[in-house]
Amino acid sequence: MGSEEDCKGNCIGWAARDSSGVLSPYRFSRRTPGPDDVSFKITHCGVCYADVVWSRNKHGDSRYPLVPGHEIVGIVKEVGSKVFRFKVGDRIGVGTYVNSCQECQYCNEKMEVNCVKGSIFTFNGVDVDGTITKGGYSDHIVIHQRYCFNIPENLPMAVAAPLLCAGITVYSPMIRHHMNQAGKSLGVIGLGGLGHMAVKFGKAFGLNVTILSTSVSKKDEALKTLGADKFVVSSDKEQMEASSKSLDFIIDTASGDHPIDLYMPLLKTAGVFAIVGFPSEIKVNPANLIVGMKSIAGSVTGGTKDIQEMIDFCAREGIYPQIEVIPIQYVNEALERMIKKDVKYRFVIDIENSLGSD
Amino acid sequence: MGSEEDCKGNCIGWAARDSSGVLSPYRFSRRTPGPDDVSFKITHCGVCYADVVWSRNKHGDSRYPLVPGHEIVGIVKEVGSKVFRFKVGDRIGVGTYVNSCQECQYCNEKMEVNCVKGSIFTFNGVDVDGTITKGGYSDHIVIHQRYCFNIPENLPMAVAAPLLCAGITVYSPMIRHHMNQAGKSLGVIGLGGLGHMAVKFGKAFGLNVTILSTSVSKKDEALKTLGADKFVVSSDKEQMEASSKSLDFIIDTASGDHPIDLYMPLLKTAGVFAIVGFPSEIKVNPANLIVGMKSIAGSVTGGTKDIQEMIDFCAREGIYPQIEVIPIQYVNEALERMIKKDVKYRFVIDIENSLGSD
Repeated sequence: MGSEEDCKGNCIGWAARDSSGVLSPYRFSRRTPGPDDVSFKITHCGVCYADVVWSRNKHGDSRYPLVPGHEIVGIVKEVGSKVFRFKVGDRIGVGTYVNSCQECQYCNEKMEVNCVKGSIFTFNGVDVDGTITKGGYSDHIVIHQRYCFNIPENLPMAVAAPLLCAGITVYSPMIRHHMNQAGKSLGVIGLGGLGHMAVKFGKAFGLNVTILSTSVSKKDEALKTLGADKFVVSSDKEQMEASSKSLDFIIDTASGDHPIDLYMPLLKTAGVFAIVGFPSEIKVNPANLIVGMKSIAGSVTGGTKDIQEMIDFCAREGIYPQIEVIPIQYVNEALERMIKKDVKYRFVIDIENSLGSD
Repeated sequence: MGSEEDCKGNCIGWAARDSSGVLSPYRFSRRTPGPDDVSFKITHCGVCYADVVWSRNKHGDSRYPLVPGHEIVGIVKEVGSKVFRFKVGDRIGVGTYVNSCQECQYCNEKMEVNCVKGSIFTFNGVDVDGTITKGGYSDHIVIHQRYCFNIPENLPMAVAAPLLCAGITVYSPMIRHHMNQAGKSLGVIGLGGLGHMAVKFGKAFGLNVTILSTSVSKKDEALKTLGADKFVVSSDKEQMEASSKSLDFIIDTASGDHPIDLYMPLLKTAGVFAIVGFPSEIKVNPANLIVGMKSIAGSVTGGTKDIQEMIDFCAREGIYPQIEVIPIQYVNEALERMIKKDVKYRFVIDIENSLGSD
């Protein structure tokens, strides 16, 4: 988008202009909805660590101006001629990807995130028409109906937003590795947007949930408000040894590098250690994997079938992310606080009531 | 055992005396069978890489004199008063462990290899009575019936031996990770005792089997005699790239260190990489695990239920390890050849016809 277009675009958002990652208002254009497209007014957008990664060009592939945001919910305002899943006024959401080849094995299985040609990310991605995708820090968005989700009436819009990335990122490996077995035990490493959802899903599945944290300061709040059964400080040798071989599953949501070998002895035989963060290296002592027949599994969000299933599950079971709702004008400060892990447990931008008001 | 006892013991075997690992004849005593014990004459014993590891004190915990061997088959010659599973004259075998606590969760599930108190290894282990266990390079052995297996009539004794370690070591993770799904695809790294059994089980399960080898020299023989579908030289970039995302499962049987990241791109989405060798470190690029939702799983032999099931499966399906039968007098040379990977694909010692004949 050139600066001329910026003035006459049909969409107002907040964009980072360079690797400082500082966000400010930015006008651009969204496409006119095609036959399969839904255009919707964005009411809320969750703030994910990915927003920091790409607005600050941490992976070296950022395309500026960059409009972040991939936990997006809103209200349908226009539908294309072939749209059958949504009508004007519907509550709708979109997550981390907005397109895929729609014809490979994985797309056919509604596992589009694994599309052989690669799924197209909701922001900073190159769409099929060559344009760069722009995310949910904006007033509306136009998406192919296939990648949109129905948000049930009883799920408040603001709490629905974080489900689209944080929610599915932990739900998907929990289902894939059969963690929804009541009576089994789950350890959760990291207590941010993803970790706190893992605790909530764990309790909903009837698991005995242990939070594995580096900081005892989080204990009381976490046990009380998240309903976890146990809190273990991972730097406390005695506590860790007392928890040896006590867990069927561990979900590791911690960003940054940390020693996996510290946690593996907590797993029972045939236990599964699921990694959903993105460390720079995965290194493990073979004895910790081979003796006890354990597995280390990676995962990244999920397919459209799983996402809708997860949203419906949360609506039915009353599983609400814990959020701090902020105006868009606060977003730069929110990103700083998220980096410092100073959020319980997910920021959600109230796009509807704040964007365009400044 | 002191040297005095060596002269009057009831059992003749071959033992290593020090970390040179050189084996030579050695007389010692086995216990009189207790109520639950079976005493059996050993006819054959497979030669496993573990025999090298402990006869040469590679882990620093060897107890000399050390009688190796944990792929043991023979004929029952005496049973205790409470033995109900075997009678004199039966064909019998024992694998890598000879005792466990018999009361923990894992023992109760016949997963004794994961006993919370640790299973007791067939050689160089400390038995419940404090004695050091001695393995199958000997004329007879006395074992609690729980850890013994029935060898069906139609399974030749010599080929049954390698099933007790090499066989179960690959069969167990194949079953645990649902590799017995006809039409799926399996890659096998390493073509020794374990690897060649993985190929055979893979074909028996109806899998499309690819051998991943460092050496093209093994190609013709392996495809012809093992029935694999494809042979890929892992150092050949083009061949490896052509196999990208083609495999549902990989079994890594290679001993020694080798780069896992080289093989991960060959796995399809949600693919499983099962490690049954024992590298010094497991290191993987997170992208290779997280993107594509893949798993790395460790495994070590299996429980008594799985072992008998695997033996029966091999007898029924005619799955025979490929072996080179040797006299005990050849064992030192055989160990050297095994280290150089110069064996197709497992040495089996003809104990019955060679031990005591020199």
